[in-house]
Amino acid sequence: MTAEPFALACPRPLRHDSVQMAHGGGGRLMKELIEGLFLPILGADPAGLHDSAVVEAGGARLAFTTDGFVVHPRAFPGGNLGELAVYGTVNDLAMAGARPLALSSAFILEEGLPFAELTPLVAAMKAAADRCGVRLATGDTKVVDRGKADGVFITTAGIGLIPAGVELHPRRVRPGDAVLVSGDLGRHGIAVMSVREGIRFETPVTSDCGPVHHLAAALLAAGLDVHCFRDPTRGGLASVLNEIAASAGVAIEADEAAIPVDEAVAAACEILGLDPLYVACEGRLVAFLPEAEVEQALEVLRAIPEGQGAARIGRVVEGPAGRVGLRTVLGTSRLLDLLSGEQLPRIC
Amino acid sequence: MTAEPFALACPRPLRHDSVQMAHGGGGRLMKELIEGLFLPILGADPAGLHDSAVVEAGGARLAFTTDGFVVHPRAFPGGNLGELAVYGTVNDLAMAGARPLALSSAFILEEGLPFAELTPLVAAMKAAADRCGVRLATGDTKVVDRGKADGVFITTAGIGLIPAGVELHPRRVRPGDAVLVSGDLGRHGIAVMSVREGIRFETPVTSDCGPVHHLAAALLAAGLDVHCFRDPTRGGLASVLNEIAASAGVAIEADEAAIPVDEAVAAACEILGLDPLYVACEGRLVAFLPEAEVEQALEVLRAIPEGQGAARIGRVVEGPAGRVGLRTVLGTSRLLDLLSGEQLPRIC
Repeated sequence: MTAEPFALACPRPLRHDSVQMAHGGGGRLMKELIEGLFLPILGADPAGLHDSAVVEAGGARLAFTTDGFVVHPRAFPGGNLGELAVYGTVNDLAMAGARPLALSSAFILEEGLPFAELTPLVAAMKAAADRCGVRLATGDTKVVDRGKADGVFITTAGIGLIPAGVELHPRRVRPGDAVLVSGDLGRHGIAVMSVREGIRFETPVTSDCGPVHHLAAALLAAGLDVHCFRDPTRGGLASVLNEIAASAGVAIEADEAAIPVDEAVAAACEILGLDPLYVACEGRLVAFLPEAEVEQALEVLRAIPEGQGAARIGRVVEGPAGRVGLRTVLGTSRLLDLLSGEQLPRIC
Repeated sequence: MTAEPFALACPRPLRHDSVQMAHGGGGRLMKELIEGLFLPILGADPAGLHDSAVVEAGGARLAFTTDGFVVHPRAFPGGNLGELAVYGTVNDLAMAGARPLALSSAFILEEGLPFAELTPLVAAMKAAADRCGVRLATGDTKVVDRGKADGVFITTAGIGLIPAGVELHPRRVRPGDAVLVSGDLGRHGIAVMSVREGIRFETPVTSDCGPVHHLAAALLAAGLDVHCFRDPTRGGLASVLNEIAASAGVAIEADEAAIPVDEAVAAACEILGLDPLYVACEGRLVAFLPEAEVEQALEVLRAIPEGQGAARIGRVVEGPAGRVGLRTVLGTSRLLDLLSGEQLPRIC
């Protein structure tokens, strides 16, 4: 293969000619990389993108997803790279309404990595998979020379079964929908940053790293007409709202006072100059469903330990497609835009 | 998670306390890493290992597999990292007798990687997927700091559908089976080495990098009673024969004179001090099936361009489980053992 025909076919010149850290940050540059390089070559439609793809196989409707995990440091308060790799993929399957069945895990190991650092990651994967009732079905290991990786990278892929009748998609989100979150935001990003930057907070922040598939399943089992799920990982809640608003061709209004953020997370964000609405979670879901079902949905979520902090944080309205507004605690309004650069690299 | 309970649970102390290059080489040390660290923690049985796992989903029987691709250099005569990532996973699905349906691709990109180097890889993936009739269904992109990866790593996972009645497994291999290969061996490893070491051969060696799923499907469609397929990637034919002999509890006798090795590959191996039987292929399959079906199987394979070089190269016999012997061209016999170290790092 040569580059020429495809380079010419690329419809939108990228602003850079090489990979920047912000291309992995979940914001505007990542969108540009995906929509300007990957999708045109692959002939894929950005509006069709979701956390999982849907694959028909022998009469079954499967969710299929993958994620690379490169977080640094590999251990943080509340979790490590291994369990993150399991929960991240389980949660992406759950966002399609699927019951997670099996995961693959591929390790890229750097020569010289002590086994004492690898073992707890693999052990955490096994424990996390058992907790989710999902099978670690297949794997691969590659080794690269010292200095050619950062200790260990784990890439997981997952298969889930989508129950009959479940149809979740951003394009189903419509004016009149409410936006719910399953708990307080930003813990994971702050937990990672606190270790990386060596910051000690008065109250230590623990990552929310954990599974949300049972929360999603409970909402569906209750017969609620969920239109879309999304987990606020890279780029946080703000990025989810922007993506959904753009895909669905709607506007979204979020209410700052209603968005649950732990005091310690808020304080840490102040110190670090971060906006918690852009900080990644690894154990939260965002649900879009009709306003009339909000009370029942909150009841379902709050009956589950991981959903106790569930809250209604905004609503979908008619308006310019892709516009996300935030009513601040001061009563003013501001735009909640996609980040241009990166806020927190390598926290997923 | 903490390491202690799992570290204690590890039943076989590893010979090293950190990752060595040879742990990725397909030989004895890789086996030790997998059987001494991964499988005990995951509670998996080494005898159950295959190129793909089988997952039941809504009545369908799926093959599921993953592979990381870290080859250096990323372009080589006959292919690049992108198409390798597609064919490698398509071929692993085919080894389970499955029809490949969908692939995921996860990119780990190093800050500073020129897009001009990324674009041809993605383009090659698309072309390879189209050639195989498989969908690139879902993907992920992560960026790591400069110096924390080697440009780009691609991890693919794949789903395939196993037709009713197809049951391929190493434990089905039995005395009386013949061993077939679909073409000449060692091209891929030598093609990569020639670029990496800057060696110019009189006759340039082109990688065999390509799909084998249609070869596998043709053998099954012909009604042949194939017991097992395996593709001779890392560790080459010798490692495949060792793994199958050990898993099936049989001995295998290979016939050096019958093993197809291109003259240019043989010459390059002489120069580089390599044994072609241990050098990786990326577009060959090894099939185990009853002696009585050999002629028909060779006919089926040779009718397909990629199978023109098919040959019967050995047979399965009663004998010490795991023993692989080679009858040399000189008429003597020698053991064809697993490699202890690595012969060719990072060629897959």
